[in-house]
Amino acid sequence: MAKDNFVEQIADIDTDFPQWYTDVVLKTKLVDYGPVKGTMVIRPYGYAIWENIQKELDKRFKAEGLENAYFPLLIPMSFMTKEAEHVEGFAPEVAVVTHAGGEKLAEPLCIRPTSETIIGSMYSKWIQSYRDLPVLMNQWANVMRWEKTTRPFLRTSEFLWQEGHTVHADEEEAMEETLKMLRVYEEFARTCLSMPVLTGRKTEKEKFAGAVATYGMEAMMHDGKSLQAGTTHYLGQNFAKAFEIKFLDKDGVQKYGYTTSFGVSTRLIGALIMTHGDRRGLVMPPVVAPVQAVIVPIAAKKEGVTEACRALRDRLAAAGIRVVLDESENSPGWKFNEWEMKGVPVRIELGPRDLEAGKCMMARRDTHEKGEYALEGAVGSVRALLDDIAENMYNTAKARMDSRIVRAESLEALLAGVDGGNFVRAGWCGCRACEDKVKEFAQATARVMDEENTSATCVVCGKKAERTVIFARAY
Amino acid sequence: MAKDNFVEQIADIDTDFPQWYTDVVLKTKLVDYGPVKGTMVIRPYGYAIWENIQKELDKRFKAEGLENAYFPLLIPMSFMTKEAEHVEGFAPEVAVVTHAGGEKLAEPLCIRPTSETIIGSMYSKWIQSYRDLPVLMNQWANVMRWEKTTRPFLRTSEFLWQEGHTVHADEEEAMEETLKMLRVYEEFARTCLSMPVLTGRKTEKEKFAGAVATYGMEAMMHDGKSLQAGTTHYLGQNFAKAFEIKFLDKDGVQKYGYTTSFGVSTRLIGALIMTHGDRRGLVMPPVVAPVQAVIVPIAAKKEGVTEACRALRDRLAAAGIRVVLDESENSPGWKFNEWEMKGVPVRIELGPRDLEAGKCMMARRDTHEKGEYALEGAVGSVRALLDDIAENMYNTAKARMDSRIVRAESLEALLAGVDGGNFVRAGWCGCRACEDKVKEFAQATARVMDEENTSATCVVCGKKAERTVIFARAY
Repeated sequence: MAKDNFVEQIADIDTDFPQWYTDVVLKTKLVDYGPVKGTMVIRPYGYAIWENIQKELDKRFKAEGLENAYFPLLIPMSFMTKEAEHVEGFAPEVAVVTHAGGEKLAEPLCIRPTSETIIGSMYSKWIQSYRDLPVLMNQWANVMRWEKTTRPFLRTSEFLWQEGHTVHADEEEAMEETLKMLRVYEEFARTCLSMPVLTGRKTEKEKFAGAVATYGMEAMMHDGKSLQAGTTHYLGQNFAKAFEIKFLDKDGVQKYGYTTSFGVSTRLIGALIMTHGDRRGLVMPPVVAPVQAVIVPIAAKKEGVTEACRALRDRLAAAGIRVVLDESENSPGWKFNEWEMKGVPVRIELGPRDLEAGKCMMARRDTHEKGEYALEGAVGSVRALLDDIAENMYNTAKARMDSRIVRAESLEALLAGVDGGNFVRAGWCGCRACEDKVKEFAQATARVMDEENTSATCVVCGKKAERTVIFARAY
Repeated sequence: MAKDNFVEQIADIDTDFPQWYTDVVLKTKLVDYGPVKGTMVIRPYGYAIWENIQKELDKRFKAEGLENAYFPLLIPMSFMTKEAEHVEGFAPEVAVVTHAGGEKLAEPLCIRPTSETIIGSMYSKWIQSYRDLPVLMNQWANVMRWEKTTRPFLRTSEFLWQEGHTVHADEEEAMEETLKMLRVYEEFARTCLSMPVLTGRKTEKEKFAGAVATYGMEAMMHDGKSLQAGTTHYLGQNFAKAFEIKFLDKDGVQKYGYTTSFGVSTRLIGALIMTHGDRRGLVMPPVVAPVQAVIVPIAAKKEGVTEACRALRDRLAAAGIRVVLDESENSPGWKFNEWEMKGVPVRIELGPRDLEAGKCMMARRDTHEKGEYALEGAVGSVRALLDDIAENMYNTAKARMDSRIVRAESLEALLAGVDGGNFVRAGWCGCRACEDKVKEFAQATARVMDEENTSATCVVCGKKAERTVIFARAY
């Protein structure tokens, strides 16, 4: 049984999920470990996912009026200290350049862990008048946060991301931007990653260092743990005051701007792997899949098969479908397994008998259903299948997430909930001590807060609940 | 004369070209200085050029079989020293990370000045057999080279680029790749930047540190100086031996691979500015222009003008033309000047009288010719104009470059040639001392060598010429 031998190459997804993850990302050549501890090399099959994510997000950003720019990698240490909470949050994680060009630098420079400070310093120079507002910029860049424990895509010292940075004349507009971008992320996750998320405001403890309010989207992984997949921050005037981002308003008065920032990263690749993967390996969401359809010739040496496969590949490619024809010398069974592990949404099998009948077989990766399709209408059939797979993957993940959100009225119930791989909805009085207690007792953190409070009492202290919170173990 | 006042904002291109460059890149908001000396901020109008360059190059790379990947920013210092010439060339320019995560690092890390070493270390792990070859990868990344004298786009401590890295089973194939990518760059420069270049092999003195042979493309700037706009390197087995990139060949023997690398950078933005710019500012090559056409309403408050302008903008945008409708409150004359300085290839003027006649005026940035066009066929007319402008810009630059390539038979003639803003073709015996002498006497360097030698004697020593070289002053 070649098939099962193949599956044995990767650890069992239900009994050893961490090892399954490592096996899958390495064996499908998404990523490799870099020579410096905590770094990753994103290999072509992984980078292609990132390119598709970039393309889809960039389109949405531009539709929202954001313009791309590029700011320097190195930030003077003195910038980091201008916003008190910011430096406290990031200073322990920065990598520091002390020497360059053969000399010791007068001031050490840090490699950006995020760019609010350096972008703020430029905005203060560029913004003079209310006519200059709003400023809406984004950059695609690498950032660095020195982490003790790392895992490819999920937490690495260097990662790729986009960071949006906007300035507005008033609070309302800035808050609106913060919430709008959260909706953009959510729609993108649903449409392009087939990934359901929970969105909401973060607690003070969990917010971005320097923000007034952070909003996040959280996705449920196969093991029931939560993964923070994107955040948007309302920064109020914190950075505007630290970096003197001021403008002359219509009324002739100098005022500080209100800023926001928001980002998603290569972590999304980890998120989609751990949302959709199964015991056979990756299951790629069609919109960002590097390969959307693979053609496996059956009895390739028989007359006409290779030609028919190539013609089909060319037709699919011409229609904009990312297709690969596997002409390697491996057996069809070996190819089936390999492309399954790589998570390609649609597999097309084409052999002499199919050819004779003017048909081909198509198998979908998500449900393993297999059916016969007319060769003539293959382009339309693949398109329809990809759409259906994207929708089905979302619905399956959504149903699983929904079925795993439980309510708890006590700390014990909360612990049992997260032990069982659930998100736990519970009341919270709003105090830090109770939030810390949940962490201590159940190794769970507040992921997001519901918009409306539906709880009577705090799950920890029993006092009146101010908010209803989703608690979970998290990556 | 509003027009001339406007032009006065920028220095005269012929009498103070360096200041003209600085004025233009800052005033058109292509770029700004970053807070750390030698760094630049690429502003949206400049970054949009880079995005267009990336799109066009990436398409070509993929057509040549290259796959994108991403390798870590930080390289262990010990890697740099594995290839002797490489470390000698790059060590003086690297920025060094000595501390991270609050601790001193066991081994200092350098920020990549180029990635042959770290990519080589990964290739040695991934490549086992001749079946794994060729490996053809590219990465889009930031790199850092600490420079003493810097200028936006031309030479900055950090810049953006692409670096291709390939491995081949034999010398012929690797050399073929090196030359093929040079042709890809040349075609891209011609087609997308409307920029003529001279290509050829570099001398030993000018080659990449660690290469067996470097090939370059050189473009002539407005002041007659040369700018190295792209290079491809045949690395032989130098890096393969330093990093143990070995494969088991068909004949059962372990062999070292042959590698190449090649790159172009944000320097190309400086190149196109200095190739095409004129006294009014930028002249953008249509294919990479952030804005290809601008619509300036005339008497915008007259009935129907705004609506007609918006309708025209929407039609052009729907046809894939990058178009802006300037609805700001500035006067048409002010707008003309601003968009001219920004180098927009086509300006469309639309007022009440045009509307009545079903026409609009179009002015081209390259020749300043202005003509009347039917509104109905505007999309086709703009497209035709953009094509014609691209071609005309190339032809104009090519004719200028060709007219400024002179021959010299003596050092004095060579000096007079470069003093006059020319490229100078001259014979060379091939020895380093004569090359150094040209530098000392004429402040000119060997840019590229002609494929065939057409010279009898060396311009310096008078001995038999081995090669014919293009000497020039260079950026």
